[in-house]
Amino acid sequence: MHKPEVKVTFQPSGRSVFVLPGTLLLEAAGRAGIILQTPCGGKGTCGKCRVLIGGRSVLACQERVQEAMTVEVPETSMFEAGQQILTTDSGEKATVNPFVRIIPFALEAPTHADPRSDTERLLAVIGVDIHIPVDVMRELPGCLRAHQWRGRAIVAGRRLLALDCRAQSSGVYGVALDVGTTTMVGTLFDLENGRECAVASRMNGQIAHGDDVISRIQKIRESPASLQALQAAVIETVNTIIEDLCRQARIAVASIYELVLAGNSTMQQILLGLDPSALGEVPFVQVFDRAITHPAVRLGIHANAGADTYVFPQIGGFVGGDTVAGMVAARLDRQAKPVLLIDIGTNGEIVLSAGQKLYAASTAAGPAFEGARIRQGMRAAPGAIEKVILNDDVEVNVIGNARPAGLCGTALIDAVAELLRTGIIDETGRIVDADELPATVSEALRQRLKPLENENRFELVPAEEAAGGEAICLWQRDVRELQLASGAIRAGINILLKRAGLQAHDLGEVLLAGAFGNFIRRNHARRIGLLPPLPTERIRFIGNAASLGAKMALLSADERHYADVLCHRTEHVDLSLDAEFQFEFSMAMMFPGPEADRT
Amino acid sequence: MHKPEVKVTFQPSGRSVFVLPGTLLLEAAGRAGIILQTPCGGKGTCGKCRVLIGGRSVLACQERVQEAMTVEVPETSMFEAGQQILTTDSGEKATVNPFVRIIPFALEAPTHADPRSDTERLLAVIGVDIHIPVDVMRELPGCLRAHQWRGRAIVAGRRLLALDCRAQSSGVYGVALDVGTTTMVGTLFDLENGRECAVASRMNGQIAHGDDVISRIQKIRESPASLQALQAAVIETVNTIIEDLCRQARIAVASIYELVLAGNSTMQQILLGLDPSALGEVPFVQVFDRAITHPAVRLGIHANAGADTYVFPQIGGFVGGDTVAGMVAARLDRQAKPVLLIDIGTNGEIVLSAGQKLYAASTAAGPAFEGARIRQGMRAAPGAIEKVILNDDVEVNVIGNARPAGLCGTALIDAVAELLRTGIIDETGRIVDADELPATVSEALRQRLKPLENENRFELVPAEEAAGGEAICLWQRDVRELQLASGAIRAGINILLKRAGLQAHDLGEVLLAGAFGNFIRRNHARRIGLLPPLPTERIRFIGNAASLGAKMALLSADERHYADVLCHRTEHVDLSLDAEFQFEFSMAMMFPGPEADRT
Repeated sequence: MHKPEVKVTFQPSGRSVFVLPGTLLLEAAGRAGIILQTPCGGKGTCGKCRVLIGGRSVLACQERVQEAMTVEVPETSMFEAGQQILTTDSGEKATVNPFVRIIPFALEAPTHADPRSDTERLLAVIGVDIHIPVDVMRELPGCLRAHQWRGRAIVAGRRLLALDCRAQSSGVYGVALDVGTTTMVGTLFDLENGRECAVASRMNGQIAHGDDVISRIQKIRESPASLQALQAAVIETVNTIIEDLCRQARIAVASIYELVLAGNSTMQQILLGLDPSALGEVPFVQVFDRAITHPAVRLGIHANAGADTYVFPQIGGFVGGDTVAGMVAARLDRQAKPVLLIDIGTNGEIVLSAGQKLYAASTAAGPAFEGARIRQGMRAAPGAIEKVILNDDVEVNVIGNARPAGLCGTALIDAVAELLRTGIIDETGRIVDADELPATVSEALRQRLKPLENENRFELVPAEEAAGGEAICLWQRDVRELQLASGAIRAGINILLKRAGLQAHDLGEVLLAGAFGNFIRRNHARRIGLLPPLPTERIRFIGNAASLGAKMALLSADERHYADVLCHRTEHVDLSLDAEFQFEFSMAMMFPGPEADRT
Repeated sequence: MHKPEVKVTFQPSGRSVFVLPGTLLLEAAGRAGIILQTPCGGKGTCGKCRVLIGGRSVLACQERVQEAMTVEVPETSMFEAGQQILTTDSGEKATVNPFVRIIPFALEAPTHADPRSDTERLLAVIGVDIHIPVDVMRELPGCLRAHQWRGRAIVAGRRLLALDCRAQSSGVYGVALDVGTTTMVGTLFDLENGRECAVASRMNGQIAHGDDVISRIQKIRESPASLQALQAAVIETVNTIIEDLCRQARIAVASIYELVLAGNSTMQQILLGLDPSALGEVPFVQVFDRAITHPAVRLGIHANAGADTYVFPQIGGFVGGDTVAGMVAARLDRQAKPVLLIDIGTNGEIVLSAGQKLYAASTAAGPAFEGARIRQGMRAAPGAIEKVILNDDVEVNVIGNARPAGLCGTALIDAVAELLRTGIIDETGRIVDADELPATVSEALRQRLKPLENENRFELVPAEEAAGGEAICLWQRDVRELQLASGAIRAGINILLKRAGLQAHDLGEVLLAGAFGNFIRRNHARRIGLLPPLPTERIRFIGNAASLGAKMALLSADERHYADVLCHRTEHVDLSLDAEFQFEFSMAMMFPGPEADRT
């Protein structure tokens, strides 16, 4: 069951995006490629992300989309003026040097003295080492003669992709696609000037076949024919996004001359029709790791007949193209100090850059951060409690104009962090019994401790205020799930640090990527031990790095080479093989003690 | 209207070929890839090409196929024992180093310690720089796991073409195709050992659309949609030949992993779907000249899904891939002295090799050599007079067990050469009046001179002996047609010699290629001035050089490189542009004087 998405249009750029009701406006803006200033990290304290909705001034980091709306973005709120030019996470402008190039030509007509073949005549002007496929060669004689031997050659690398001999060119565009397990985002670029023209997002059509990659792999292992169904589902989503992009920009699909796709290894393999079954059992083997270029038309993707699809290289196991794209966007090997890049989701991908050498691992955090396996958990949708604050009593923020119905991932972290601080949860993750509560705990909070048979629980919302008429609680079992999820990621971090001979305090920065990473409270993530004990200012949200990396690779062939270089330098660490992982995991499941409150 | 072809089977090889009734057995054998010894040049004098038909001993150079038959070929009659191994014209064994290679592999299964991707695992064994297309990559995971990580990689150049993981391989084959305007011949080779497995030939299905290239080009110029119909016709013929080859060798079409095609520029362009219209008007521009490699499946050719089609490079205008293939087979630049290669047909292609530099031209000889535009002319089919000898009276040879019905090209040359010798035709090509006849002319011959109104004619067969009840004559106008055809070729030869600063006597050899070239009498061709005045032993028949070149390019990638090198060294001479051509043409239309009889 998925809610219908609503359209949010941003002015003055006119860009629009479809999002689920309840999505934070800041996130919607990011998906539309509009990066707002958030020096406070989205806490609602700095006021820099102020935007206007129907003349009403709101903070984009606090406001949630409820219905279709138009949002005015003042230039002062932009991360950088002229943001239509792609910038890297570090603010560096992306180079515009696309793999797909446009070469105008004006040839001399053949004469007795110069009867060269049509291909040699063209190649002498556009480059003698360019390959002309037969399909394009078929257009050549008619095209040249009908248009006075003038036109534009669309060249992809050393291949003549298409000829455009019309007087009025219809433009040369490309699409960068972030192929997420849940959400897919496409961005249309004009390849002649590198300008972003439209953004569109959709739920990945594969969701009907399973929520996470493991269930989709399982489905294919059980019935190999499902591979085609899953591939068709994601290709259909790609085509829906392309259609939307073309409608927004008022261009024909034939004007799309290249696609760049980044996804996790399961998504990339299914999209290419490559059986991911071997990812479903030890030792988690990928079909490929080098970047793949394949004709879009052969995948059933709607684009120019000569358009290629570039799919990012992969590192190993579940560390796929989205991680590589994120590494490219973060310029991960170019930082002065060691850097950790973390993308938290059902799978947590962790990359540690220690100068010339990089280490990457994926860890099965499980779906706790997405609200699954939590007794009263839910996705970040209307009705979800997304924030929990404990003072004398409990305060909660709910997504949308709705009564609270359950807990989403960020609220789970908030709740546990706050209960740890107040001593209601101890370092082992146990919700203490009433007689163990510290004296400092207020009476209101004490009242919320509701033991039930063998399981303690803490009431966040009383029954009379909850949507379902049933109290919303944090259950002991939920804390255990969070310990598993958080511990898996933290253990991964620790193993990678050990591999590199580093300690947490050596890290110059921790970069949080991905949708979830952008919405957790850094201090709380640190408090529960998910992140190492570093000052908050060294923990930075970098938005959808995978998507940014895909855009950069579309706009510059150099970025693809850089992706290869990064992959080559990165060692894939299979955590399940690491002798110390189980020990680290057990240790990381323990919460930090009260000293963590003083960091 | 085309006669049904009949099947000729050669023993002990078992190879068979379909030919028109009336085809010389020597030619049929050649089409089946069986080269017989013919030191006398097919005059029927040396007796070396002796074969057995139903126990009856005949000379293959004198016997014509009338109906389906089986022919026993004694080993002593073979050009070389073990002729299944391809030899070049000079007797040199062709290198077997095909572009398509088979690489067996046995991989280690993935383990915790070695979880490389399937592609990296394979590439480490077959070559890290080999490209694996997505279509083949899709087979990889299942194929490797179902067959204990063993199999054979079929590699074309640096591309993985297919995987063969079955225990019993079904073999790796290739087809070389000579795509003639009239006849197409395909030869199947086992690419693992270079052995020839089957030969099949068919009429080019395009014949229904016009007899020669000019009429087919004209058809496309008038109605561009005909290009598709003509392409479909030739592809259908290719598929019929492939089907026949596979049936003979009992293999599946999927076992054909590569095709090499050689044809004239019109044939090659139509086959690839490239509009040949610009060849139909000055300055006769080709669409391409470099060799083309294109997936067979994209042309509708039946072969392995990954098979490529290699099409020969072209030199310019009407000098196409068949000429280049012939140059490759003749090792044209490797002769000690200058060499002339001539392929006589509707278009005569002439190549002069003068050391490092080569010159090529095509000349529109017109269809006189094929019996067209000759008043009582016909193709070399049953009923055609194919040989004319003048002694005291006229003797003629007729193809097949039939009454004479008309003249074919070789007889036309014979008749004119003999009439020149006897003085019945003078140097200007005039059939003299009765009162001008030399005294040496016999009474019987004098009686055959039959003036009719304004046109002289010479009776070859009286009405009562002719099939149609009408005398078969050589008409004055026929002599004029021959003068035009012969003069065009000879003028071309002279222009090329001049370009190279050579004279006819500098030529070490004149090589005659193609079906017609193999059947003309060398002395007669020289007598009428078609060939320069060189000793007969310096004029050599080299059979179907284009077909041989195609086979060599299938069996060795080096030959393709050699073809490129030859093309690069060859200057295309457009005779229509040469200031001296008209003069040379006029001169060459004059027949040599009586001194030619003494050569």
